[in-house]
Amino acid sequence: MATYKNRLEIGKVWVTGKVLEFVGLAEALERLLRKASMDIGGETVRVQDAVGRHSFRDYASKVDLPPYDRSAVDGVAARFSDVAGASESSPAVLSLAGSVDVDSVEVPPVGRSEAVLVSTGAPIPNGADVVIPIEYCLVKGESVYVYRSYPRYANISFRGEDLRVGDLIVRRGTRLRPWHVAALAASGYDQVEVFRRPRVAVLNTGDEVLKGLVPNVTYYVVSSYVKEVGGEVVYWRVVRDDVGEISEALREALDVVDAVVVTGGTSVGARDVVPEAVLRLEGSEEVFRGVRIRPGRTASAYAVKGKPVLLVSGLPVAAYISLDLFLVPLLSKAYGSPPEARPKISGRLTRRLPNEVGFRSFYRVVACRDRDEVLVVPLRLTGSGILSTLIRANAILEIPEDLEGYEEGSRVEVTLINPLEDCSGVLTSGEPRS
Amino acid sequence: MATYKNRLEIGKVWVTGKVLEFVGLAEALERLLRKASMDIGGETVRVQDAVGRHSFRDYASKVDLPPYDRSAVDGVAARFSDVAGASESSPAVLSLAGSVDVDSVEVPPVGRSEAVLVSTGAPIPNGADVVIPIEYCLVKGESVYVYRSYPRYANISFRGEDLRVGDLIVRRGTRLRPWHVAALAASGYDQVEVFRRPRVAVLNTGDEVLKGLVPNVTYYVVSSYVKEVGGEVVYWRVVRDDVGEISEALREALDVVDAVVVTGGTSVGARDVVPEAVLRLEGSEEVFRGVRIRPGRTASAYAVKGKPVLLVSGLPVAAYISLDLFLVPLLSKAYGSPPEARPKISGRLTRRLPNEVGFRSFYRVVACRDRDEVLVVPLRLTGSGILSTLIRANAILEIPEDLEGYEEGSRVEVTLINPLEDCSGVLTSGEPRS
Repeated sequence: MATYKNRLEIGKVWVTGKVLEFVGLAEALERLLRKASMDIGGETVRVQDAVGRHSFRDYASKVDLPPYDRSAVDGVAARFSDVAGASESSPAVLSLAGSVDVDSVEVPPVGRSEAVLVSTGAPIPNGADVVIPIEYCLVKGESVYVYRSYPRYANISFRGEDLRVGDLIVRRGTRLRPWHVAALAASGYDQVEVFRRPRVAVLNTGDEVLKGLVPNVTYYVVSSYVKEVGGEVVYWRVVRDDVGEISEALREALDVVDAVVVTGGTSVGARDVVPEAVLRLEGSEEVFRGVRIRPGRTASAYAVKGKPVLLVSGLPVAAYISLDLFLVPLLSKAYGSPPEARPKISGRLTRRLPNEVGFRSFYRVVACRDRDEVLVVPLRLTGSGILSTLIRANAILEIPEDLEGYEEGSRVEVTLINPLEDCSGVLTSGEPRS
Repeated sequence: MATYKNRLEIGKVWVTGKVLEFVGLAEALERLLRKASMDIGGETVRVQDAVGRHSFRDYASKVDLPPYDRSAVDGVAARFSDVAGASESSPAVLSLAGSVDVDSVEVPPVGRSEAVLVSTGAPIPNGADVVIPIEYCLVKGESVYVYRSYPRYANISFRGEDLRVGDLIVRRGTRLRPWHVAALAASGYDQVEVFRRPRVAVLNTGDEVLKGLVPNVTYYVVSSYVKEVGGEVVYWRVVRDDVGEISEALREALDVVDAVVVTGGTSVGARDVVPEAVLRLEGSEEVFRGVRIRPGRTASAYAVKGKPVLLVSGLPVAAYISLDLFLVPLLSKAYGSPPEARPKISGRLTRRLPNEVGFRSFYRVVACRDRDEVLVVPLRLTGSGILSTLIRANAILEIPEDLEGYEEGSRVEVTLINPLEDCSGVLTSGEPRS
C-alpha cells in the first residue's frame, strides 16, 4: 500500500481543479511552438545520399542550364517558315545539310529549305528556329520529308531557360526529393548541407515496465515513430517512478538530444512524479498539462531551456496520436517548412461515432472500396491500449471539438495510414468480436 | 557522321510503323506485370529495426493480450449496480476496500457497495464489472464518492480481447508501421523476417555522358528514386552506345540485382542499341517498346528470364515519371500488397492544359491555397529535360487518354509531391520566364 497516499492526493487534485485545466489542442500546439524548439544543426552529406533529408540552407545554381540552346527531341532542325503548314498529305521537302550530336564539334548552319538532323541535347544549328520530332519526318537519301508543323521555337530549349546562374534551386528546410538531388548535382554541387537527423531520447517510466511485468510496447511505438519521421533515438532508459531518478535521466538526456519523449508510467502516482522531476531542472517550465484529445488526454509538455519534453501515455495508441500531434509540428518549426501532406480519402461512415464536445477524437477506422463507393468502418474501441485496432485500421478519423459526433451515413474524410482495402472481408473482421 | 546510317534507319523505322506500336499505359502495365517479376528474398532484422520494411511472412500472436482482465484507466473498480445513475449532484458513496497496481500480488475483491482503486493495466478485482475514471471520483478517508456513471464493463479490457494466441497480426507484404512493430514485440517476436531491400542496377548509356559533356543528372534521379521506394542501387555503370558493352553490363548486373534501369543515351542511335543489347541475352523478351505517356513515351521494358529491364529516358523528368509508373507496381507485385496511398488534393485549374487523345499526360503544377480555395497553376513545359519545373512544382496533374485536356477553371485532382503552398508569390514565379 506504499502508493496509497499518492492516490488520495491525485484523486483530490484531479477532482479539485486540475481536470479543468486541460487545454484544447490548438492552444496546446500554440503554446508548445511558442515555448519550445528543436535546435537541429546541420551536417554535410554527398549529394547522392541527400534524398529524404532536409536542406540546411538555400542553394542557388552555379551554372546556366541548359548551357547552350539545344534540341529537346531527336528530330530535324529547320526554319519555321519552311515547315509551317506541313502535314501528312502535303509534307514539306527539305534538303539534308548535315547532322549534330550532343558531342559534335562542328554544327552546320541551316539555310533556306535545308534541314539538319539533331539529337536530343544537341546544339541548335544557326538559322534554325524549330525542331520537328524525327517520328514526323522521313529521311530519304538527301531529302527530308516533314509531315507535321510545330509552332516557332518548338522543341528548342534555350540557354538558361531551365536554370540561370543564381536561380534558387532549393530552399532551406525543403525535404529533398529525387529532382532536387538531380538539380543540385546538375548545378555543380557534390555535397549538400542538410539538417542532421533529429535526436530524440525516450524515457519509459513505470515500475511494472522495469520489472518486466508488461511488455514495453510503447518504446517500440515511439522509437519506430521517431525513425519514420527521419530521426533517431540516441538515448533510451527505463526508469522507476522516482523523482530523483527521472530527473537525473532527463538531465543526462537533454545534454545530447533535441527532444525528450517520456512515456507515462501506468501507475496512478507516476503522473505526478514526472512533472515534478521535469520542474526540478534548471530553466524548465510547464507548457501544458493534459490536452482535450481522445485518446491521449494525459499528454503534457514542458520546455527545459527551450527544449521540448513531451509526456505521452504509456498506452501505445495514445502515445502514437500524441507524438503525431506534437512532434511533427516541432520538426516542421525546426526545418522552417510545412509538414508533408498526408494521403486522405472521403467515404461514407457505416455507424454513428460520438464525440465529447470540447475534445478532439481520433478514431481508428477501416476505409475500404465497396463497388463504386468508399466505406469508412469504425473499429471497436476499448481504451487506447488496444493494439489490434491499429493493426486492423488503415485510416484515422478525426472529429473536431465542436461536433457531438458523426451520424451513420455521413460523408467523412479520413487520413490513410496504410493502403486502401477492398471491403470484402473487412466488414466482419472490423466488427466487435466479444 | 558515324551514326548517319543509324539515323536514316530510325527515321524510317519510326515513320514506317514503330510509332504506331506504342502501347497504352494500361496495356504496358498489364504486360509488364504478366511477364516480369522482382524476386526479392527475405532477411531477418531485429524487431526494433523493422519499421518501414515489408513483412516477408504472416505473423500470428504467440500470446493473449491483455494476458488478464485489466483496467484501461486509473480509477475506481466497482459493481455496476452500485454506481448506475451516479451524477455530480447525486454521487454514489462506496467504501474503500483496497487498491491494485499493475504489479500487485494480492487483488482484493469488490463486495457490495465497495470500491477498489485500480491503476491503468492493473488486474480487475473479483466482483467488479465497471471502472470509473479517477477524475470522476473523490477519495475521502475510507469513502469513495463517484460522480458519474458508465455502462457495465466500461474501462475494462478483457483477457485476449486485443489479441488472442493465433490471431493474425501482420500479413506478408505489409509495410510495417510503428504499431505493427509494437504488436510484433508484444506478441513475443524479437526478430522479424522482412523483404530485403530491392536491389537495382542503373546503367547510363550515352557517349556524351561517358565523355562528361553533360552532367549525369538522370543517375541522381534514378538512384534517389530507388532509395525513396526503399531499394538500393548496388550496381552502376556508364556505358557507351555499344551493343556489346551494354549487353555485357546487363549480364553482369542481372546476376546481382532484382531489376535493371537503363537510362537512354540521348543520341538518336542509342535507342536501337539498348534493345538489341537486351535481346542478345538468353531468355530475354520485349514487353513493350514505347508507351503512350507524356513525358516519357520512349520508355520500354524487357524481361530477361523474368527479371525486369526498364529503359527510361535520359531526361530527368521523363525518367522520374516512367519509374513511378513501372517500378512501383513491380514492387507492389513482389510484396503482394497494394502500393502506398499518395496525398492528393483538388483545386481549380488556372489555365487550359491540352492533351493528345490516346496519350496520358503528366503535367507539373503548383497547388496552392488562395483564401478559401486551392488553385492549380501549371508550370511551363519545354521538354522533359527541364528540372526547374519539377523543383518549382509541388504536384503532378494527370490527364487521362480519353480527354483532349482540361479547360481553364476546371476542378482537377492532383498528386502532391511536396507540401501545399500559399499562393502568394507562386502565381508570378510559376509563369513563363522567357
